[in-house]
Amino acid sequence: MTLNVAIAGASGYAGGEILRLLLNHPAYISGDLTIGALTGGSNAGQSLGDLMPHLPQLRDRRLVDTNKDTLAGHDVVFLGLPHGHSAEIAQQLGEDTVILDCAADFRLQNSADWEKFYGSPHAGIWPYGIPEMPGHREQITNAKHIAIPGCFPTGATLALLPAVQAGLIEPTINLVSITGVSGAGKKANVAMLGAETMGNVKAYNTGGKHRHTPEVIQNLKEVTDQDVTVSFTPVLAPMPRGILTTATAPLISDQDPHEVYEAFYQNEPFVEVLPVGEQPQTKNVVGSNSVHIQVEANRDAGVLLVTSAIDNLTKGTAGAAVQCMNLAVGFTETAGLPLTGLAP
Amino acid sequence: MTLNVAIAGASGYAGGEILRLLLNHPAYISGDLTIGALTGGSNAGQSLGDLMPHLPQLRDRRLVDTNKDTLAGHDVVFLGLPHGHSAEIAQQLGEDTVILDCAADFRLQNSADWEKFYGSPHAGIWPYGIPEMPGHREQITNAKHIAIPGCFPTGATLALLPAVQAGLIEPTINLVSITGVSGAGKKANVAMLGAETMGNVKAYNTGGKHRHTPEVIQNLKEVTDQDVTVSFTPVLAPMPRGILTTATAPLISDQDPHEVYEAFYQNEPFVEVLPVGEQPQTKNVVGSNSVHIQVEANRDAGVLLVTSAIDNLTKGTAGAAVQCMNLAVGFTETAGLPLTGLAP
Amino acid sequence: MTLNVAIAGASGYAGGEILRLLLNHPAYISGDLTIGALTGGSNAGQSLGDLMPHLPQLRDRRLVDTNKDTLAGHDVVFLGLPHGHSAEIAQQLGEDTVILDCAADFRLQNSADWEKFYGSPHAGIWPYGIPEMPGHREQITNAKHIAIPGCFPTGATLALLPAVQAGLIEPTINLVSITGVSGAGKKANVAMLGAETMGNVKAYNTGGKHRHTPEVIQNLKEVTDQDVTVSFTPVLAPMPRGILTTATAPLISDQDPHEVYEAFYQNEPFVEVLPVGEQPQTKNVVGSNSVHIQVEANRDAGVLLVTSAIDNLTKGTAGAAVQCMNLAVGFTETAGLPLTGLAP
Amino acid sequence: MTLNVAIAGASGYAGGEILRLLLNHPAYISGDLTIGALTGGSNAGQSLGDLMPHLPQLRDRRLVDTNKDTLAGHDVVFLGLPHGHSAEIAQQLGEDTVILDCAADFRLQNSADWEKFYGSPHAGIWPYGIPEMPGHREQITNAKHIAIPGCFPTGATLALLPAVQAGLIEPTINLVSITGVSGAGKKANVAMLGAETMGNVKAYNTGGKHRHTPEVIQNLKEVTDQDVTVSFTPVLAPMPRGILTTATAPLISDQDPHEVYEAFYQNEPFVEVLPVGEQPQTKNVVGSNSVHIQVEANRDAGVLLVTSAIDNLTKGTAGAAVQCMNLAVGFTETAGLPLTGLAP
Repeated sequence: MTLNVAIAGASGYAGGEILRLLLNHPAYISGDLTIGALTGGSNAGQSLGDLMPHLPQLRDRRLVDTNKDTLAGHDVVFLGLPHGHSAEIAQQLGEDTVILDCAADFRLQNSADWEKFYGSPHAGIWPYGIPEMPGHREQITNAKHIAIPGCFPTGATLALLPAVQAGLIEPTINLVSITGVSGAGKKANVAMLGAETMGNVKAYNTGGKHRHTPEVIQNLKEVTDQDVTVSFTPVLAPMPRGILTTATAPLISDQDPHEVYEAFYQNEPFVEVLPVGEQPQTKNVVGSNSVHIQVEANRDAGVLLVTSAIDNLTKGTAGAAVQCMNLAVGFTETAGLPLTGLAP
Repeated sequence: MTLNVAIAGASGYAGGEILRLLLNHPAYISGDLTIGALTGGSNAGQSLGDLMPHLPQLRDRRLVDTNKDTLAGHDVVFLGLPHGHSAEIAQQLGEDTVILDCAADFRLQNSADWEKFYGSPHAGIWPYGIPEMPGHREQITNAKHIAIPGCFPTGATLALLPAVQAGLIEPTINLVSITGVSGAGKKANVAMLGAETMGNVKAYNTGGKHRHTPEVIQNLKEVTDQDVTVSFTPVLAPMPRGILTTATAPLISDQDPHEVYEAFYQNEPFVEVLPVGEQPQTKNVVGSNSVHIQVEANRDAGVLLVTSAIDNLTKGTAGAAVQCMNLAVGFTETAGLPLTGLAP
Repeated sequence: MTLNVAIAGASGYAGGEILRLLLNHPAYISGDLTIGALTGGSNAGQSLGDLMPHLPQLRDRRLVDTNKDTLAGHDVVFLGLPHGHSAEIAQQLGEDTVILDCAADFRLQNSADWEKFYGSPHAGIWPYGIPEMPGHREQITNAKHIAIPGCFPTGATLALLPAVQAGLIEPTINLVSITGVSGAGKKANVAMLGAETMGNVKAYNTGGKHRHTPEVIQNLKEVTDQDVTVSFTPVLAPMPRGILTTATAPLISDQDPHEVYEAFYQNEPFVEVLPVGEQPQTKNVVGSNSVHIQVEANRDAGVLLVTSAIDNLTKGTAGAAVQCMNLAVGFTETAGLPLTGLAP
Repeated sequence: MTLNVAIAGASGYAGGEILRLLLNHPAYISGDLTIGALTGGSNAGQSLGDLMPHLPQLRDRRLVDTNKDTLAGHDVVFLGLPHGHSAEIAQQLGEDTVILDCAADFRLQNSADWEKFYGSPHAGIWPYGIPEMPGHREQITNAKHIAIPGCFPTGATLALLPAVQAGLIEPTINLVSITGVSGAGKKANVAMLGAETMGNVKAYNTGGKHRHTPEVIQNLKEVTDQDVTVSFTPVLAPMPRGILTTATAPLISDQDPHEVYEAFYQNEPFVEVLPVGEQPQTKNVVGSNSVHIQVEANRDAGVLLVTSAIDNLTKGTAGAAVQCMNLAVGFTETAGLPLTGLAP
């Protein structure tokens, strides 16, 4: 049987990255997966040759409207839509359709958090797509509906989970996450022009305002009974892709943190706890589904420092979505997901 | 039977890119290809975890010395050595070893050209590894020794071959090729520091001095009886990878050049003649083995303009080497070679 | 007497660069020049603190509407408006007002060229603001109305003028000009996002379509009786500022071209003919009004190669405008215009 | 009387930036300051035309050896030498020579800190050149010897001083400082190649190992009696210049932090406390001596967030040195030091 896959909102960066991964997926190459409807909004009717010339295999495909008719009849639907549209689409699709939602709609458990940060009614909760979180791989396997995490929460959660679970730190966390510019999406915007962003670094949505803050806290609370606070400072850096997360928190344990991290991630195919002394570099994970992590005790300052590198579009979005699809439909979890980054 | 592959000079950018491609090659994944000896010079003994952290699968492998013993017993040997070392290594390897030389040693047919541009005795001639050149695919198939082309000649030759063969132009060619900084290799060099190259564009090795000039002329002469002159201006641009070639020459034909190019490349899996009006972008081919080409008549100025985009490390070096290996050992020509670029 | 200076269209990149130069101009520092009205379009009412935080001295100034009342009463008015608006504004200003038009409206002598390339009625001709062109310094001195040249024509004209005038070349010119992204202006545009432009090089408006083509031809015709053809290929590179021009043409002279260039520019304060063997780099002129030039005969290919580097926003626009203002109002020509580039 | 100024170690980035500032200094333009000996190490004898083509005025000057004879007879000597050489040079110069040391040799008060972080005997203490620190302007005025601060400590100290002095925070500080690549100096180094640094972000010298850590602590201790701890994480970003400092610490005050900062810096010409809601951007201070600062209470997380932007080569090194020279020799403090950044 061939799995028929659609992407709603295929022309954004998340949609393009899902397509790039699917085109190199062994199931696509063997014919066990076909790429069905690719939908858009205002750019419906345009060809992928114009919109995504980096995918020459799809050059003659055209975006169709996003609606229940164009999306009907697919086994898997990826949603790459703006926040707030997923619930309506999901209701219109058949019960057996596997839906992977790259928006935030079904990520937060707490309705008040949702309303405070997103300003609209809460849609609900779906299984949350970080298979590396305790218990989540089991929830995702064979699930029909999966909420794909935000890019910053992915980097931060994987960086902090072992420390919080093992009680290495007080969970009063300082998080500075430095992201490439594709995180802002493929939307016309003076502040994101090349002339504004090249040669420039700046913080934004500071002081607790960034929407990913409650998502990080929610994830860490799954492994601790303590209160968790997060001071989150996102920073924009002049590169297309990648997130470097730096996290510090008061160190309260004499354990060797590197051993804790190696043990926590020993069976995870995509997480690489780097050798002592080697720092993660975003370039080493670009285009891959890998997460590179380093952890280090700074006993002079009394803090634990954890750093992680991911590609915001791959492990941070589209790679996570394909990883979850693999689990949901019974493919090998790692199928089609490169471990190798595109360096230099 | 498993193909055992070695790389001599594995720690440079070409070596790293060959490894990245092999790790994602279906023959590697199925176990039909193994990665054997990886050799280095001064960095022999170092681990790939330190040298190439973007290849986590090889983290515990160490570089060994480059010599006949370490390279013995492999079915395929890629040479990523500085110019001038390939002949000696090749003599030491068994006659049945497939050797893919990424240096210039066996590219030039004319000894005088070699001596003028490289200043050392000429090693000889091997089949030249651009399968898209008329007759070359046949020479490469089942060959034991293949000279992998230079990055600039690949972009320029594929841009100009159809026009020269069809007589669209007088072959007095102006070539301006804009390259990313990885073309200079992984060698300590003040002029190639990030602080010197970011935010900067400059020409270099101008006025006929660049060593790739005779290689371009040689390739074009294969499809014309006329004299060929090339004014070649390489330009360094602030990006890691990619070459955009712009070529102009006096237009002497009324034919539709786009049709000529589409016909010439209609069966080539890696060459994409873009739709009229769309220009090649290096980003759309980064990490891929694709070549994007556009051709256009400027009848006001009386010239033909051809532009092409390649990744200098993939189709420009390592991808070409893997493509030639596939032909030499009987794999599918396109195996393990992505068509999709890593955009954005 | 204090010179009162207004800028119409102050919020674009040209306007911001004029302001940056004026704030460091000795006449501003001494109080002999004041910065009067700063006008905008849709962003009238906004503060410069929001729009141009790199100019902290003007943080509390606000943009006013662009109209004859806000612009009245100034001795000098810089126009940084879209093409097509300058004539109307100019008519409304007093006859004694010095107007420096950074748009194309009054650059082209040939109405047919204007209509072909700009698609609207031709406004007329003003003295053309490249003081380094023979006779132009005299026209600009004490002029009331000056057309500031386009950025590409500035780099190309200064690169080619000596060769064309001295008859070193046949004027059938190949021009490839590589520009930073600020040349596209401060307008929301998906194709100019950082995520699209970083790590990317592409040609655009190729094949004779770029509006600067007739401007280059017009300038070169001032020093030759021969027909001039120009094949112009603009290329976008991932840097904020700078243009590297590469120009080639058939070489028809035995003269030492370097001597011709040194003689031609020996008294020009802003033109630096580099020592033989050293290529211009955009970084060395960024933020300055300098033009760096190299010229070289390639006798194997039978061509002359000239390369030049300018900052598209400084010598290419705002610096030229201030240089022309200096000449028009009787300041020292070089006042307030740095020779030094911001490297690294 | 004309001030005669020498630079020892003129060919590095700090030396080049001092020269760029001096060439645009009003005292140089009026003839009250001359640029005397420019010295180098292994590149003595080379011309500035080759080494620093961005300074065309000095094209024909050549570096001389660094020794007491070449440096003798100057009123002011800037030292841009590697750490550990300043004491010997200083002893050889006349007592009346004003010396501005851009190395770390005379910054640290605590010999044990020096020995731990620099591994050599402690040279001593000179007045520390941040005029914005309480009491320091007075120490620097008319001083003969001044220790120019490190680039990271400048950004961090100016970000944190008001908060520590006013008791807004507990001084257990998390510091993440994101720097451009010129901070690593003009030395050949594979890890700092453009191909390695473009498109890449990574932390380095983490966990308390960076030499600037004790310098930050020392500065903050000047305004508090409490113990100060600093967890310092330097991060390398793909831009040539600039440092964005993000600092967080436990918030223990109900005061409006923005008012505290505005009051603290109200008379400082180079410090711009940005309007509420606007974040510092490195691009807005590049090439300038300005410091842009924002401060914000995050009461949910219980922390104060301060961000600051400087140019590491200007306010972070060469601009500070010129500012201190101005104070030491009786020039206007702000002379020759731009407030305006080179944006875009």
